[in-house]
Amino acid sequence: MGMTVLKEIEGVREQVRAWREQGFTVGLVPTMGYLHEGHASLIRRAAEENDRVVVSVFVNPTQFGPKEDLSSYPRDLVRDIETVERSGGDMIFYPEASAMYPEAYSTYVEVGGITGELCGRSRPAHFRGVATVVTKLFNIVRPDRAYFGRKDAQQLAVIRRMAKDLNMDLEIVGCPIVREPDGLAMSSRNSYLSKEERADALVLSRALRQCRERFQSGCRDAQALKEEMRGIIAGASSAVPDYVEIVDAVTFHSVKTIEKKALAALAVYIGKTRLIDNTLLDPDDEEDPEL
Amino acid sequence: MGMTVLKEIEGVREQVRAWREQGFTVGLVPTMGYLHEGHASLIRRAAEENDRVVVSVFVNPTQFGPKEDLSSYPRDLVRDIETVERSGGDMIFYPEASAMYPEAYSTYVEVGGITGELCGRSRPAHFRGVATVVTKLFNIVRPDRAYFGRKDAQQLAVIRRMAKDLNMDLEIVGCPIVREPDGLAMSSRNSYLSKEERADALVLSRALRQCRERFQSGCRDAQALKEEMRGIIAGASSAVPDYVEIVDAVTFHSVKTIEKKALAALAVYIGKTRLIDNTLLDPDDEEDPEL
Repeated sequence: MGMTVLKEIEGVREQVRAWREQGFTVGLVPTMGYLHEGHASLIRRAAEENDRVVVSVFVNPTQFGPKEDLSSYPRDLVRDIETVERSGGDMIFYPEASAMYPEAYSTYVEVGGITGELCGRSRPAHFRGVATVVTKLFNIVRPDRAYFGRKDAQQLAVIRRMAKDLNMDLEIVGCPIVREPDGLAMSSRNSYLSKEERADALVLSRALRQCRERFQSGCRDAQALKEEMRGIIAGASSAVPDYVEIVDAVTFHSVKTIEKKALAALAVYIGKTRLIDNTLLDPDDEEDPEL
Repeated sequence: MGMTVLKEIEGVREQVRAWREQGFTVGLVPTMGYLHEGHASLIRRAAEENDRVVVSVFVNPTQFGPKEDLSSYPRDLVRDIETVERSGGDMIFYPEASAMYPEAYSTYVEVGGITGELCGRSRPAHFRGVATVVTKLFNIVRPDRAYFGRKDAQQLAVIRRMAKDLNMDLEIVGCPIVREPDGLAMSSRNSYLSKEERADALVLSRALRQCRERFQSGCRDAQALKEEMRGIIAGASSAVPDYVEIVDAVTFHSVKTIEKKALAALAVYIGKTRLIDNTLLDPDDEEDPEL
Protein backbone atom coordinates (compact mmCIF):
# COMPACT_ATOMS: atom_id res chain seq x y z
CA MET A 1 0.00 0.00 0.00
CA GLY A 2 1.10 3.60 -0.56
CA MET A 3 1.95 6.25 1.98
CA THR A 4 -0.44 9.02 2.97
CA VAL A 5 0.53 12.51 4.12
CA LEU A 6 -2.27 14.05 6.22
CA LYS A 7 -2.44 17.54 7.72
CA GLU A 8 -5.88 17.41 9.30
CA ILE A 9 -6.46 15.86 12.73
CA GLU A 10 -9.89 14.59 11.66
CA GLY A 11 -8.42 12.88 8.60
CA VAL A 12 -5.92 11.01 10.77
CA ARG A 13 -8.68 9.91 13.15
CA GLU A 14 -10.75 8.59 10.24
CA GLN A 15 -7.86 6.65 8.70
CA VAL A 16 -6.89 5.11 12.05
CA ARG A 17 -10.54 4.24 12.75
CA ALA A 18 -10.74 2.47 9.37
CA TRP A 19 -7.57 0.52 10.18
CA ARG A 20 -8.95 -0.46 13.58
CA GLU A 21 -12.16 -1.70 12.00
CA GLN A 22 -10.03 -4.04 9.91
CA GLY A 23 -8.44 -5.31 13.11
CA PHE A 24 -5.06 -3.68 12.48
CA THR A 25 -2.74 -2.65 15.30
CA VAL A 26 -1.19 0.82 15.05
CA GLY A 27 2.27 2.06 16.01
CA LEU A 28 3.16 5.74 16.38
CA VAL A 29 6.59 7.33 15.91
CA PRO A 30 6.46 10.98 17.07
CA THR A 31 9.19 13.10 15.46
CA MET A 32 10.08 16.70 14.67
CA GLY A 33 11.02 15.68 11.13
CA TYR A 34 14.35 16.04 9.30
CA LEU A 35 14.51 12.30 9.76
CA HIS A 36 17.80 10.47 10.09
CA GLU A 37 18.79 6.84 10.49
CA GLY A 38 17.83 6.96 14.19
CA HIS A 39 14.23 7.79 13.24
CA ALA A 40 14.33 5.18 10.47
CA SER A 41 15.25 2.54 13.04
CA LEU A 42 12.20 3.52 15.14
CA ILE A 43 9.93 3.30 12.09
CA ARG A 44 11.32 -0.12 11.11
CA ARG A 45 10.83 -1.41 14.66
CA ALA A 46 7.26 -0.03 14.69
CA ALA A 47 6.57 -1.68 11.32
CA GLU A 48 7.81 -5.02 12.68
CA GLU A 49 5.54 -4.84 15.71
CA ASN A 50 2.37 -3.26 14.26
CA ASP A 51 0.16 -3.67 11.19
CA ARG A 52 0.19 0.05 10.45
CA VAL A 53 2.65 2.83 11.37
CA VAL A 54 1.94 6.54 11.75
CA VAL A 55 4.92 8.94 11.82
CA SER A 56 4.10 12.41 13.10
CA VAL A 57 6.29 15.24 11.82
CA PHE A 58 5.72 18.33 13.93
CA VAL A 59 8.22 20.92 15.13
CA ASN A 60 6.38 21.50 18.39
CA PRO A 61 6.67 25.16 19.43
CA THR A 62 5.73 24.56 23.09
CA GLN A 63 8.87 22.53 23.77
CA PHE A 64 11.23 25.29 22.61
CA GLY A 65 12.38 28.07 24.91
CA PRO A 66 12.20 31.72 23.77
CA LYS A 67 15.91 31.83 22.82
CA GLU A 68 16.06 28.37 21.27
CA ASP A 69 16.18 27.18 17.66
CA LEU A 70 12.46 26.85 16.83
CA SER A 71 12.60 29.03 13.71
CA SER A 72 15.86 27.57 12.41
CA TYR A 73 15.05 23.91 13.17
CA PRO A 74 15.80 22.01 9.95
CA ARG A 75 12.89 20.85 7.76
CA ASP A 76 12.74 18.65 4.66
CA LEU A 77 9.34 17.06 4.14
CA VAL A 78 10.16 15.58 0.74
CA ARG A 79 13.12 13.67 2.12
CA ASP A 80 11.09 12.71 5.22
CA ILE A 81 8.39 11.17 3.03
CA GLU A 82 11.02 9.04 1.31
CA THR A 83 12.52 7.97 4.64
CA VAL A 84 9.14 6.99 6.10
CA GLU A 85 8.18 5.08 2.97
CA ARG A 86 11.51 3.26 2.77
CA SER A 87 11.35 2.34 6.48
CA GLY A 88 7.88 0.82 6.32
CA GLY A 89 5.66 3.65 7.61
CA ASP A 90 2.10 4.03 6.29
CA MET A 91 1.17 7.60 7.14
CA ILE A 92 2.83 10.92 7.91
CA PHE A 93 0.80 13.19 10.16
CA TYR A 94 2.02 16.69 9.43
CA PRO A 95 -0.17 19.16 11.33
CA GLU A 96 -0.02 22.95 11.36
CA ALA A 97 0.92 24.58 14.67
CA SER A 98 -2.32 26.59 14.48
CA ALA A 99 -4.33 23.35 14.37
CA MET A 100 -2.48 21.84 17.31
CA TYR A 101 -2.58 25.04 19.38
CA PRO A 102 -5.60 27.07 18.25
CA GLU A 103 -6.59 30.39 19.80
CA ALA A 104 -7.43 30.18 23.53
CA TYR A 105 -5.43 26.97 23.88
CA SER A 106 -4.62 26.60 27.58
CA THR A 107 -4.01 23.00 28.72
CA TYR A 108 -0.63 21.52 29.64
CA VAL A 109 0.53 18.20 31.02
CA GLU A 110 3.10 18.61 33.77
CA VAL A 111 5.30 15.74 34.90
CA GLY A 112 7.02 16.50 38.20
CA GLY A 113 10.09 14.95 39.80
CA ILE A 114 12.47 13.91 37.02
CA THR A 115 11.71 17.00 34.92
CA GLY A 116 13.60 19.21 37.38
CA GLU A 117 16.93 17.53 36.58
CA LEU A 118 19.39 17.67 33.64
CA CYS A 119 17.69 19.13 30.54
CA GLY A 120 14.81 20.32 32.74
CA ARG A 121 17.21 22.79 34.38
CA SER A 122 18.51 24.44 31.23
CA ARG A 123 15.18 24.11 29.36
CA PRO A 124 12.53 24.81 32.04
CA ALA A 125 9.33 24.47 29.96
CA HIS A 126 10.75 21.84 27.59
CA PHE A 127 9.29 18.69 29.11
CA ARG A 128 5.92 20.34 29.71
CA GLY A 129 5.80 20.98 25.97
CA VAL A 130 6.90 17.43 25.19
CA ALA A 131 4.40 15.80 27.58
CA THR A 132 1.60 17.99 26.22
CA VAL A 133 2.23 17.36 22.53
CA VAL A 134 2.76 13.63 23.07
CA THR A 135 -0.55 13.43 24.97
CA LYS A 136 -2.25 15.19 22.06
CA LEU A 137 -0.64 12.85 19.51
CA PHE A 138 -1.63 9.81 21.59
CA ASN A 139 -5.23 11.06 21.74
CA ILE A 140 -5.36 11.74 18.01
CA VAL A 141 -3.77 8.48 16.85
CA ARG A 142 -4.65 6.19 19.81
CA PRO A 143 -1.74 3.87 18.99
CA ASP A 144 -1.14 0.46 20.53
CA ARG A 145 2.56 1.28 20.82
CA ALA A 146 4.65 4.44 20.59
CA TYR A 147 8.39 4.51 19.81
CA PHE A 148 11.04 6.85 21.25
CA GLY A 149 14.82 6.85 20.99
CA ARG A 150 16.99 6.43 24.06
CA LYS A 151 19.22 9.33 23.03
CA ASP A 152 16.54 11.49 24.64
CA ALA A 153 16.72 9.36 27.78
CA GLN A 154 15.08 11.90 30.05
CA GLN A 155 12.29 12.51 27.54
CA LEU A 156 11.67 8.76 27.39
CA ALA A 157 11.52 8.58 31.20
CA VAL A 158 9.12 11.54 31.33
CA ILE A 159 6.84 9.93 28.75
CA ARG A 160 6.89 6.56 30.54
CA ARG A 161 6.05 8.29 33.83
CA MET A 162 3.23 10.29 32.22
CA ALA A 163 1.73 7.30 30.41
CA LYS A 164 1.73 5.27 33.62
CA ASP A 165 0.41 8.09 35.82
CA LEU A 166 -2.40 9.06 33.45
CA ASN A 167 -3.37 5.43 32.69
CA MET A 168 -2.70 5.80 28.99
CA ASP A 169 -3.58 2.48 27.38
CA LEU A 170 -0.55 1.89 25.20
CA GLU A 171 2.98 0.54 25.31
CA ILE A 172 5.95 2.94 25.33
CA VAL A 173 8.89 1.36 23.49
CA GLY A 174 12.40 2.75 24.03
CA CYS A 175 14.85 2.08 21.19
CA PRO A 176 18.67 2.02 20.98
CA ILE A 177 20.71 5.11 20.14
CA VAL A 178 21.87 5.03 16.52
CA ARG A 179 25.36 6.43 15.88
CA GLU A 180 27.44 7.58 12.95
CA PRO A 181 30.36 5.22 12.17
CA ASP A 182 32.69 7.48 14.21
CA GLY A 183 30.41 7.38 17.29
CA LEU A 184 28.42 10.64 17.07
CA ALA A 185 24.82 10.02 18.13
CA MET A 186 22.47 10.81 15.27
CA SER A 187 20.46 14.01 15.66
CA SER A 188 18.67 16.40 13.34
CA ARG A 189 20.68 19.14 15.02
CA ASN A 190 23.97 17.66 13.73
CA SER A 191 23.10 19.45 10.48
CA TYR A 192 23.92 22.76 12.23
CA LEU A 193 27.59 21.78 12.71
CA SER A 194 30.45 23.23 10.67
CA LYS A 195 33.22 20.86 9.61
CA GLU A 196 35.35 21.80 12.63
CA GLU A 197 32.40 21.52 14.99
CA ARG A 198 31.49 18.13 13.53
CA ALA A 199 34.95 16.92 14.56
CA ASP A 200 34.66 18.52 18.01
CA ALA A 201 31.23 16.92 18.52
CA LEU A 202 32.95 13.56 18.87
CA VAL A 203 33.92 14.50 22.44
CA LEU A 204 30.43 13.50 23.63
CA SER A 205 30.58 9.86 22.59
CA ARG A 206 34.30 9.72 23.36
CA ALA A 207 33.71 10.94 26.93
CA LEU A 208 30.90 8.44 27.40
CA ARG A 209 33.01 5.59 26.01
CA GLN A 210 35.82 6.47 28.37
CA CYS A 211 33.36 6.68 31.27
CA ARG A 212 32.01 3.23 30.37
CA GLU A 213 35.50 1.74 30.17
CA ARG A 214 36.44 3.07 33.62
CA PHE A 215 33.07 1.82 34.93
CA GLN A 216 33.70 -1.63 33.45
CA SER A 217 37.11 -1.73 35.07
CA GLY A 218 35.39 -1.22 38.44
CA CYS A 219 35.12 2.52 39.07
CA ARG A 220 31.85 3.40 40.86
CA ASP A 221 32.80 6.95 41.91
CA ALA A 222 30.57 9.36 39.98
CA GLN A 223 32.75 12.38 40.73
CA ALA A 224 35.86 10.74 39.27
CA LEU A 225 33.96 9.61 36.17
CA LYS A 226 32.47 13.07 35.63
CA GLU A 227 35.84 14.79 35.98
CA GLU A 228 37.34 12.50 33.39
CA MET A 229 34.44 13.24 31.02
CA ARG A 230 34.82 16.98 31.59
CA GLY A 231 38.50 16.66 30.77
CA ILE A 232 37.78 15.01 27.45
CA ILE A 233 35.12 17.63 26.56
CA ALA A 234 37.54 20.45 27.45
CA GLY A 235 39.87 19.10 24.76
CA ALA A 236 37.57 20.39 22.01
CA SER A 237 37.86 24.15 21.52
CA SER A 238 34.23 24.74 20.46
CA ALA A 239 32.75 22.55 23.24
CA VAL A 240 31.09 24.08 26.34
CA PRO A 241 29.30 21.66 28.64
CA ASP A 242 25.73 22.44 29.74
CA TYR A 243 25.79 19.46 32.11
CA VAL A 244 27.97 16.39 32.67
CA GLU A 245 26.05 14.13 35.01
CA ILE A 246 25.67 10.65 36.42
CA VAL A 247 22.10 10.14 37.62
CA ASP A 248 19.91 7.36 38.92
CA ALA A 249 18.27 5.80 35.85
CA VAL A 250 14.81 5.92 37.48
CA THR A 251 14.68 9.15 39.52
CA PHE A 252 17.25 11.15 37.49
CA HIS A 253 18.71 12.41 40.77
CA SER A 254 22.47 12.84 40.83
CA VAL A 255 24.33 9.89 42.39
CA LYS A 256 27.68 9.81 44.21
CA THR A 257 28.33 6.09 44.01
CA ILE A 258 26.90 3.89 41.28
CA GLU A 259 25.11 1.08 43.11
CA LYS A 260 22.21 0.47 40.76
CA LYS A 261 21.32 1.37 37.19
CA ALA A 262 22.61 4.85 36.41
CA LEU A 263 22.88 7.02 33.38
CA ALA A 264 25.94 8.96 32.32
CA ALA A 265 24.33 11.92 30.55
CA LEU A 266 25.82 14.88 28.71
CA ALA A 267 24.55 18.09 27.18
CA VAL A 268 27.28 20.03 25.42
CA TYR A 269 27.22 23.16 23.32
CA ILE A 270 29.32 22.71 20.20
CA GLY A 271 29.45 26.34 19.08
CA LYS A 272 25.79 27.36 19.18
CA THR A 273 24.47 23.80 18.80
CA ARG A 274 23.36 21.98 21.92
CA LEU A 275 23.89 18.21 21.63
CA ILE A 276 22.96 15.48 24.10
CA ASP A 277 24.10 11.90 24.52
CA ASN A 278 24.04 9.27 27.25
CA THR A 279 24.92 5.72 28.19
CA LEU A 280 23.51 3.30 30.73
CA LEU A 281 25.81 2.20 33.55
CA ASP A 282 24.38 -1.00 35.02
CA PRO A 283 26.39 -2.66 37.83
CA ASP A 284 24.61 -5.95 37.02
CA ASP A 285 25.31 -5.83 33.29
CA GLU A 286 28.30 -3.76 32.30
CA GLU A 287 27.99 -4.15 28.55
CA ASP A 288 26.35 -1.46 26.45
CA PRO A 289 26.16 -2.64 22.86
CA GLU A 290 24.94 0.79 21.81
CA LEU A 291 28.12 2.73 22.46
CA MET B 1 -28.18 -7.59 32.84
CA GLY B 2 -26.84 -7.11 36.38
CA MET B 3 -24.57 -4.42 37.69
CA THR B 4 -20.87 -4.92 38.33
CA VAL B 5 -18.79 -3.18 41.00
CA LEU B 6 -15.12 -3.18 40.03
CA LYS B 7 -12.16 -1.86 42.01
CA GLU B 8 -9.33 -2.78 39.67
CA ILE B 9 -8.36 -0.57 36.73
CA GLU B 10 -7.43 -3.63 34.64
CA GLY B 11 -10.84 -5.21 35.29
CA VAL B 12 -12.60 -2.09 34.03
CA ARG B 13 -10.46 -2.04 30.90
CA GLU B 14 -11.29 -5.69 30.18
CA GLN B 15 -15.02 -5.22 30.64
CA VAL B 16 -15.08 -2.12 28.45
CA ARG B 17 -12.97 -3.89 25.82
CA ALA B 18 -15.48 -6.77 25.79
CA TRP B 19 -18.36 -4.30 25.36
CA ARG B 20 -16.55 -2.57 22.50
CA GLU B 21 -15.99 -5.89 20.75
CA GLN B 22 -19.75 -6.37 20.80
CA GLY B 23 -20.10 -2.95 19.15
CA PHE B 24 -21.53 -1.23 22.23
CA THR B 25 -21.08 2.49 22.88
CA VAL B 26 -20.02 3.48 26.39
CA GLY B 27 -21.03 6.46 28.53
CA LEU B 28 -19.13 7.57 31.65
CA VAL B 29 -20.55 9.44 34.65
CA PRO B 30 -17.66 10.50 36.93
CA THR B 31 -18.83 11.08 40.53
CA MET B 32 -17.51 11.27 44.08
CA GLY B 33 -20.36 9.01 45.23
CA TYR B 34 -23.09 9.65 47.81
CA LEU B 35 -25.30 9.86 44.77
CA HIS B 36 -28.40 12.04 44.70
CA GLU B 37 -31.10 12.73 42.15
CA GLY B 38 -28.75 15.03 40.23
CA HIS B 39 -26.34 12.12 39.64
CA ALA B 40 -29.29 9.84 38.83
CA SER B 41 -30.36 12.24 36.10
CA LEU B 42 -26.86 12.05 34.57
CA ILE B 43 -26.93 8.26 34.66
CA ARG B 44 -30.38 8.11 33.05
CA ARG B 45 -29.25 10.48 30.30
CA ALA B 46 -26.12 8.40 29.73
CA ALA B 47 -28.23 5.22 29.57
CA GLU B 48 -30.48 6.82 26.97
CA GLU B 49 -27.55 7.79 24.76
CA ASN B 50 -25.19 4.80 25.18
CA ASP B 51 -25.43 1.02 25.18
CA ARG B 52 -23.46 0.71 28.40
CA VAL B 53 -22.89 3.14 31.29
CA VAL B 54 -19.95 3.24 33.70
CA VAL B 55 -20.33 5.31 36.89
CA SER B 56 -17.07 6.03 38.68
CA VAL B 57 -17.30 6.58 42.43
CA PHE B 58 -14.06 8.09 43.69
CA VAL B 59 -13.49 10.76 46.31
CA ASN B 60 -10.48 12.19 44.53
CA PRO B 61 -7.92 13.44 47.08
CA THR B 62 -6.04 15.67 44.61
CA GLN B 63 -8.99 18.02 44.16
CA PHE B 64 -9.32 18.78 47.88
CA GLY B 65 -7.28 21.47 49.60
CA PRO B 66 -5.40 20.72 52.85
CA LYS B 67 -8.14 22.28 55.03
CA GLU B 68 -11.09 20.94 53.07
CA ASP B 69 -13.54 18.10 53.74
CA LEU B 70 -11.75 15.13 52.16
CA SER B 71 -11.91 12.93 55.26
CA SER B 72 -15.49 13.82 56.16
CA TYR B 73 -16.88 13.67 52.61
CA PRO B 74 -20.00 11.46 52.86
CA ARG B 75 -19.86 7.88 51.57
CA ASP B 76 -22.55 5.21 51.12
CA LEU B 77 -21.60 2.60 48.54
CA VAL B 78 -24.58 0.35 49.22
CA ARG B 79 -27.03 3.12 48.48
CA ASP B 80 -24.92 4.24 45.48
CA ILE B 81 -25.15 0.74 43.98
CA GLU B 82 -28.94 0.89 44.26
CA THR B 83 -29.04 4.35 42.68
CA VAL B 84 -26.84 3.33 39.75
CA GLU B 85 -28.84 0.15 39.16
CA ARG B 86 -32.18 1.94 39.35
CA SER B 87 -30.97 4.68 36.98
CA GLY B 88 -29.77 2.31 34.27
CA GLY B 89 -26.03 2.11 34.92
CA ASP B 90 -24.10 -1.08 34.17
CA MET B 91 -20.90 -0.75 36.16
CA ILE B 92 -19.54 1.10 39.16
CA PHE B 93 -15.81 1.74 39.05
CA TYR B 94 -14.76 2.17 42.66
CA PRO B 95 -10.95 2.46 42.77
CA GLU B 96 -8.67 2.84 45.79
CA ALA B 97 -6.76 6.12 46.06
CA SER B 98 -3.53 4.09 46.24
CA ALA B 99 -4.32 2.54 42.84
CA MET B 100 -5.11 5.89 41.24
CA TYR B 101 -2.11 7.65 42.80
CA PRO B 102 0.57 5.04 43.49
CA GLU B 103 3.96 5.85 44.97
CA ALA B 104 6.05 8.24 42.84
CA TYR B 105 2.94 9.53 41.08
CA SER B 106 3.87 12.89 39.58
CA THR B 107 1.76 13.91 36.56
CA TYR B 108 -0.90 16.63 36.53
CA VAL B 109 -3.06 18.21 33.87
CA GLU B 110 -3.22 21.98 34.18
CA VAL B 111 -5.89 24.04 32.46
CA GLY B 112 -5.03 27.74 32.43
CA GLY B 113 -7.24 30.77 31.91
CA ILE B 114 -10.66 30.05 33.40
CA THR B 115 -9.21 28.13 36.35
CA GLY B 116 -7.92 31.36 37.88
CA GLU B 117 -11.46 32.70 38.44
CA LEU B 118 -14.27 31.91 40.94
CA CYS B 119 -13.68 28.55 42.64
CA GLY B 120 -10.11 28.56 41.30
CA ARG B 121 -9.34 31.51 43.60
CA SER B 122 -10.56 29.95 46.85
CA ARG B 123 -9.50 26.41 45.87
CA PRO B 124 -6.16 26.92 44.06
CA ALA B 125 -5.27 23.28 43.23
CA HIS B 126 -8.88 22.12 42.84
CA PHE B 127 -9.23 22.18 39.06
CA ARG B 128 -5.79 20.69 38.55
CA GLY B 129 -7.00 17.73 40.62
CA VAL B 130 -10.27 17.57 38.67
CA ALA B 131 -8.60 17.76 35.25
CA THR B 132 -6.06 15.11 36.26
CA VAL B 133 -8.53 12.57 37.63
CA VAL B 134 -10.94 13.08 34.73
CA THR B 135 -8.08 12.49 32.27
CA LYS B 136 -7.24 9.28 34.10
CA LEU B 137 -10.87 8.12 34.11
CA PHE B 138 -11.19 8.92 30.39
CA ASN B 139 -8.05 6.91 29.66
CA ILE B 140 -9.23 3.95 31.75
CA VAL B 141 -12.81 3.81 30.42
CA ARG B 142 -12.32 5.42 26.97
CA PRO B 143 -15.98 6.45 26.84
CA ASP B 144 -17.81 7.78 23.78
CA ARG B 145 -19.52 10.35 25.98
CA ALA B 146 -19.00 11.69 29.50
CA TYR B 147 -21.69 13.42 31.58
CA PHE B 148 -21.27 16.34 33.99
CA GLY B 149 -23.80 18.48 35.85
CA ARG B 150 -24.06 22.20 35.18
CA LYS B 151 -24.15 22.97 38.91
CA ASP B 152 -20.37 22.72 38.68
CA ALA B 153 -20.38 25.13 35.75
CA GLN B 154 -16.73 26.06 36.00
CA GLN B 155 -15.69 22.40 36.30
CA LEU B 156 -17.71 21.65 33.15
CA ALA B 157 -16.00 24.53 31.31
CA VAL B 158 -12.56 23.34 32.47
CA ILE B 159 -13.27 19.80 31.27
CA ARG B 160 -14.59 20.99 27.91
CA ARG B 161 -11.48 23.16 27.46
CA MET B 162 -9.17 20.29 28.42
CA ALA B 163 -10.89 17.74 26.18
CA LYS B 164 -10.70 20.11 23.23
CA ASP B 165 -7.11 21.20 23.88
CA LEU B 166 -5.78 17.66 24.36
CA ASN B 167 -7.78 16.22 21.41
CA MET B 168 -9.64 13.77 23.60
CA ASP B 169 -11.86 11.74 21.30
CA LEU B 170 -15.18 11.89 23.16
CA GLU B 171 -18.23 14.08 23.66
CA ILE B 172 -18.61 16.10 26.87
CA VAL B 173 -22.30 16.38 27.79
CA GLY B 174 -23.43 19.07 30.24
CA CYS B 175 -26.71 18.32 32.06
CA PRO B 176 -29.27 20.52 33.86
CA ILE B 177 -29.04 21.35 37.55
CA VAL B 178 -31.47 19.23 39.57
CA ARG B 179 -33.10 20.99 42.52
CA GLU B 180 -35.07 20.05 45.63
CA PRO B 181 -38.74 21.11 45.45
CA ASP B 182 -37.89 24.31 47.39
CA GLY B 183 -35.10 25.29 44.97
CA LEU B 184 -31.91 24.09 46.69
CA ALA B 185 -29.52 22.65 44.11
CA MET B 186 -28.83 19.00 44.88
CA SER B 187 -25.37 18.30 46.30
CA SER B 188 -23.81 15.53 48.33
CA ARG B 189 -22.61 18.28 50.68
CA ASN B 190 -26.22 19.20 51.55
CA SER B 191 -26.03 16.25 53.97
CA TYR B 192 -23.70 18.35 56.17
CA LEU B 193 -26.44 20.93 56.86
CA SER B 194 -28.29 21.21 60.18
CA LYS B 195 -32.03 21.94 60.04
CA GLU B 196 -31.43 25.69 60.46
CA GLU B 197 -28.63 25.68 57.89
CA ARG B 198 -30.82 23.76 55.44
CA ALA B 199 -33.32 26.63 55.64
CA ASP B 200 -30.56 29.26 55.29
CA ALA B 201 -29.15 27.41 52.25
CA LEU B 202 -32.17 28.53 50.25
CA VAL B 203 -30.57 31.96 49.91
CA LEU B 204 -28.43 30.67 47.03
CA SER B 205 -31.28 29.70 44.70
CA ARG B 206 -33.38 32.61 45.96
CA ALA B 207 -30.63 35.11 45.12
CA LEU B 208 -30.17 33.57 41.67
CA ARG B 209 -33.92 33.58 41.02
CA GLN B 210 -34.11 37.25 41.96
CA CYS B 211 -31.10 37.99 39.76
CA ARG B 212 -32.79 36.21 36.85
CA GLU B 213 -36.05 38.13 37.34
CA ARG B 214 -34.25 41.47 37.34
CA PHE B 215 -32.28 40.35 34.27
CA GLN B 216 -35.49 39.36 32.49
CA SER B 217 -37.00 42.73 33.28
CA GLY B 218 -34.08 44.33 31.46
CA CYS B 219 -31.30 44.91 33.97
CA ARG B 220 -27.85 44.33 32.41
CA ASP B 221 -25.78 46.00 35.15
CA ALA B 222 -23.73 43.26 36.85
CA GLN B 223 -22.89 45.42 39.88
CA ALA B 224 -26.55 46.06 40.65
CA LEU B 225 -27.45 42.40 40.23
CA LYS B 226 -24.57 41.29 42.46
CA GLU B 227 -25.50 43.76 45.20
CA GLU B 228 -29.04 42.50 45.21
CA MET B 229 -27.82 38.91 45.50
CA ARG B 230 -25.46 39.84 48.32
CA GLY B 231 -28.38 41.47 50.13
CA ILE B 232 -30.45 38.29 49.92
CA ILE B 233 -27.53 36.15 51.12
CA ALA B 234 -26.93 38.52 54.05
CA GLY B 235 -30.47 37.79 55.19
CA ALA B 236 -29.44 34.29 56.36
CA SER B 237 -27.52 34.36 59.63
CA SER B 238 -25.31 31.31 58.87
CA ALA B 239 -24.46 32.42 55.30
CA VAL B 240 -21.06 33.92 54.42
CA PRO B 241 -20.38 34.43 50.72
CA ASP B 242 -17.12 33.14 49.23
CA TYR B 243 -17.94 34.81 45.91
CA VAL B 244 -20.98 36.41 44.28
CA GLU B 245 -20.11 36.90 40.64
CA ILE B 246 -21.38 37.52 37.15
CA VAL B 247 -18.90 36.22 34.61
CA ASP B 248 -18.65 35.69 30.89
CA ALA B 249 -19.95 32.18 30.23
CA VAL B 250 -16.93 31.31 28.05
CA THR B 251 -13.92 33.05 29.62
CA PHE B 252 -15.23 33.18 33.23
CA HIS B 253 -13.90 36.74 33.47
CA SER B 254 -16.01 39.15 35.51
CA VAL B 255 -18.32 41.33 33.38
CA LYS B 256 -19.69 44.80 34.06
CA THR B 257 -22.52 44.82 31.54
CA ILE B 258 -24.21 41.65 30.35
CA GLU B 259 -23.97 41.76 26.56
CA LYS B 260 -23.57 38.08 25.78
CA LYS B 261 -24.04 34.79 27.60
CA ALA B 262 -23.06 35.23 31.24
CA LEU B 263 -23.24 33.16 34.35
CA ALA B 264 -24.47 34.37 37.72
CA ALA B 265 -22.40 32.19 40.04
CA LEU B 266 -22.34 31.88 43.81
CA ALA B 267 -20.22 30.11 46.39
CA VAL B 268 -21.56 30.57 49.91
CA TYR B 269 -20.51 29.08 53.22
CA ILE B 270 -23.56 27.93 55.18
CA GLY B 271 -21.89 27.37 58.55
CA LYS B 272 -18.88 25.25 57.61
CA THR B 273 -20.43 23.89 54.42
CA ARG B 274 -19.43 25.52 51.15
CA LEU B 275 -22.24 25.36 48.57
CA ILE B 276 -22.22 26.54 44.97
CA ASP B 277 -24.98 27.33 42.50
CA ASN B 278 -25.36 29.25 39.26
CA THR B 279 -27.70 30.28 36.49
CA LEU B 280 -27.16 31.23 32.88
CA LEU B 281 -28.04 34.79 31.85
CA ASP B 282 -28.44 34.84 28.08
CA PRO B 283 -29.49 38.16 26.49
CA ASP B 284 -30.77 36.22 23.45
CA ASP B 285 -32.84 33.74 25.46
CA GLU B 286 -33.89 34.98 28.86
CA GLU B 287 -35.64 31.81 30.04
CA ASP B 288 -33.84 29.33 32.28
CA PRO B 289 -36.06 26.32 32.81
CA GLU B 290 -33.62 24.97 35.39
CA LEU B 291 -34.18 27.56 38.08
